[in-house]
Amino acid sequence: MIYPELLQKLINYYKKFPGVGEKSAERMALATIELDSKDVDDFSQILKDAKAKLHPCKICGQLTENEICNICNNPQRDKNLICVIEDYKSVFSFEKVGNFQGVYHVLNGLISPMDSIGPEDINISSLVKRVNELENPELILALKSSVEGETTTLYIKKIFENKKVTISRLSYGIPMGAEIDYLDIITLDKALEDRKKISE
Amino acid sequence: MIYPELLQKLINYYKKFPGVGEKSAERMALATIELDSKDVDDFSQILKDAKAKLHPCKICGQLTENEICNICNNPQRDKNLICVIEDYKSVFSFEKVGNFQGVYHVLNGLISPMDSIGPEDINISSLVKRVNELENPELILALKSSVEGETTTLYIKKIFENKKVTISRLSYGIPMGAEIDYLDIITLDKALEDRKKISE
Repeated sequence: MIYPELLQKLINYYKKFPGVGEKSAERMALATIELDSKDVDDFSQILKDAKAKLHPCKICGQLTENEICNICNNPQRDKNLICVIEDYKSVFSFEKVGNFQGVYHVLNGLISPMDSIGPEDINISSLVKRVNELENPELILALKSSVEGETTTLYIKKIFENKKVTISRLSYGIPMGAEIDYLDIITLDKALEDRKKISE
Repeated sequence: MIYPELLQKLINYYKKFPGVGEKSAERMALATIELDSKDVDDFSQILKDAKAKLHPCKICGQLTENEICNICNNPQRDKNLICVIEDYKSVFSFEKVGNFQGVYHVLNGLISPMDSIGPEDINISSLVKRVNELENPELILALKSSVEGETTTLYIKKIFENKKVTISRLSYGIPMGAEIDYLDIITLDKALEDRKKISE
């Protein structure tokens, strides 16, 4: 055995994380040993606390330490404007952008007949319930541009077809800074389809 | 605040590690939440154990959970052959190679007049003591090819000048697989100087 047993165990834990290989795990484990004892104790405690106390918000499904998350609880957020997302990680992306003033709804998955995931396996019925309770609901479907994402988008669009619900999806198009020459043809085709008039 | 408080705290801890930026820290924190509770408890405990129980070996200075490390304690390792290294991390590199049958001595630093680090600030006196107790000592100085590394190599060489100690240093030269055209001139110069005769 190359490493002392405890170090090996620590390395094995770090290796469980996405994007952390053998070398990074070793570096992190050694860095752990070099932290202050107090920092290690705190870190150790926060790991347990975070795992134990973070859970989905009762309304939108994003991570929170409380029953209702800070966003659903914030009186300044527009409760009629719901951004529908695949998982709670998207919340952080939108909040970093900082321009969205509505609330979220975490589907916790996408419809995927290939993987036998149907509408009843993701949080769609709770979305319908939320929308039905609103006066002037607007949905932004912020799902990825894959078969599953588009299937889910179409399904949700269909549910609310004959109801007074404004629905939009994110635009597809050229990512900022990308060279047109290097874009894949599907993205380019979508960018053409979703083109925006800038002058009459 | 974008993240729930506990998640933010966890992210801050992961960010303390070398090579872990904002994005990786977020990914690791979210992966933590998705681990089993049992795994998180174990991880939390091992962090504390590793920090509390790993300390330098009394003989060589490498990390161990015991008083004497597994390598110094191994009767099959040649105690007369000592590989002198800057820090305990080098032990793992050599042990991964797996061809070295001797023992180690961790200097825990290099002589660096620029940083006011003298021979008395690193583990040289304990090296002298170890060597003096051996019958037929041989030292391999495995220090990096920097000013500090070479200063330390020369200093150790000088200490044992009139004593019966065989001393070598690692060869300098071309790293395996490197293109000669792209090598820096100092490495190329060293490779020339350290050239190895392959035929008379």
